[in-house]
Amino acid sequence: MADSVGAVACGHLDEVTARAEWILTIVTDDRAMNQIFRSSGRSLLKGAKGKVFINCATISPATHIKVEERATKVGASTLEACMASSITQAREGTLYLMCGGRKNTYKKVEPLLKDLSSSMRYIGAAGKASEVKALVNMVMNINTAGLAEGLGLGAALGHDLTMLREVFSQTGANSRVLETDGEDMQLRDHACYFSAGHAAKDSGIALSMAKPTKIALPLAQATYAQYQAMEQAGLADLDKSGIAELTFPGRGPKKAKTKKAPQKKR
Amino acid sequence: MADSVGAVACGHLDEVTARAEWILTIVTDDRAMNQIFRSSGRSLLKGAKGKVFINCATISPATHIKVEERATKVGASTLEACMASSITQAREGTLYLMCGGRKNTYKKVEPLLKDLSSSMRYIGAAGKASEVKALVNMVMNINTAGLAEGLGLGAALGHDLTMLREVFSQTGANSRVLETDGEDMQLRDHACYFSAGHAAKDSGIALSMAKPTKIALPLAQATYAQYQAMEQAGLADLDKSGIAELTFPGRGPKKAKTKKAPQKKR
Repeated sequence: MADSVGAVACGHLDEVTARAEWILTIVTDDRAMNQIFRSSGRSLLKGAKGKVFINCATISPATHIKVEERATKVGASTLEACMASSITQAREGTLYLMCGGRKNTYKKVEPLLKDLSSSMRYIGAAGKASEVKALVNMVMNINTAGLAEGLGLGAALGHDLTMLREVFSQTGANSRVLETDGEDMQLRDHACYFSAGHAAKDSGIALSMAKPTKIALPLAQATYAQYQAMEQAGLADLDKSGIAELTFPGRGPKKAKTKKAPQKKR
Repeated sequence: MADSVGAVACGHLDEVTARAEWILTIVTDDRAMNQIFRSSGRSLLKGAKGKVFINCATISPATHIKVEERATKVGASTLEACMASSITQAREGTLYLMCGGRKNTYKKVEPLLKDLSSSMRYIGAAGKASEVKALVNMVMNINTAGLAEGLGLGAALGHDLTMLREVFSQTGANSRVLETDGEDMQLRDHACYFSAGHAAKDSGIALSMAKPTKIALPLAQATYAQYQAMEQAGLADLDKSGIAELTFPGRGPKKAKTKKAPQKKR
């Protein structure tokens, strides 16, 4: 694969920086982002003068701002390019991108980002795009958790879930997650497109953003608690639709198997 | 108005029954439903033999079942015809109706209901349609409360809410309530189509239905608490979109004015 597209596997981060002008990154969380952009050692920032980093991970706005500051110090540029879509869209080059950072950096990389996306918008300074991304995922996660409750209770009351999903789709209960996750919840198909662990992380980011504002977010908090419960139950790698495991009758994490104490040889 | 459509204002409920073959009812809650269908006195059930009651209120499934039992005793029929739409659709005859009760009663009144609706479906025995209706409103209320949190936090962080609603509409945060209530939340326009008080009632019905099933519904509970908070703050008559009063910066119920203790005449 690497050969056929002319790619090279690098052993160290600074080799990536040395070999490219524009570098796209996408990592799991703040910790990983801080590590690849650490100020010392063979990080992406070593020898990065004049380079452009396009950072696509969904992480906290504060970390995007910190990374921009560190990059600026060594003469590099950064842009956050938050993706509000999933694996399928990435493969097809039809991502929905929300960008934050300096406007001139955005203008510079716009042609590349257009190739990756079907829709793209500049939101504002560093941190602003990831704020919007966190708000999107916060609301998406709430709708997902709520849908799992509606379908779960419907199942418990003996309703035909195909009928119920159809009624939901035609009424005030309709939502994008009903389209993307409703049938998966019914069929218990939780192959991962966007993991429950990532849903927990993103709701957590939104709640952190909210803290200084003093805005009350009881629904976001209840949703965060549900996705944390999935993590605690060892279900973090299921798709976010796997939250149905917490609300459908007869489902749910299996009780942890208690290991039999090994028999001592006599 | 009454004259021009040939209507007569009746002083007692049994006069309504005497004057019509098919009687449509729509009342606020279980208490009102029990009152118009009480077993004694001049209720709708007096002299009701052979009559058909079509009951459109969103009330608890248990009450629909009780009303059917009482009606059957006096030789009348009932059908629940739960409406998943609002005032505009009622005026235009384009309601979304979900029906519950005996199938032969449904067949009998089908032509009339078709005149009132653009979509109609038979769900099952008495109580079953109102279960589905309660599930629809439970999920709708969750999505509404979640949207109010997303837009409220967005406002607190200084984002342009027209931009934010557009991003929501193009991503996993999209929902029917974003279409119907998002702009109203932004503009603080809470003229009532579906009241916060009714939202509280319906989430409460769903939670009561859930009790015997032991299904955990933390999102539905948090939503119920929010709509109850609106009631307690005197905001029950606002549209359900008025839940934004609880999550937008600088909004919210005014602090109750403390009455000055009247000065005693000396």
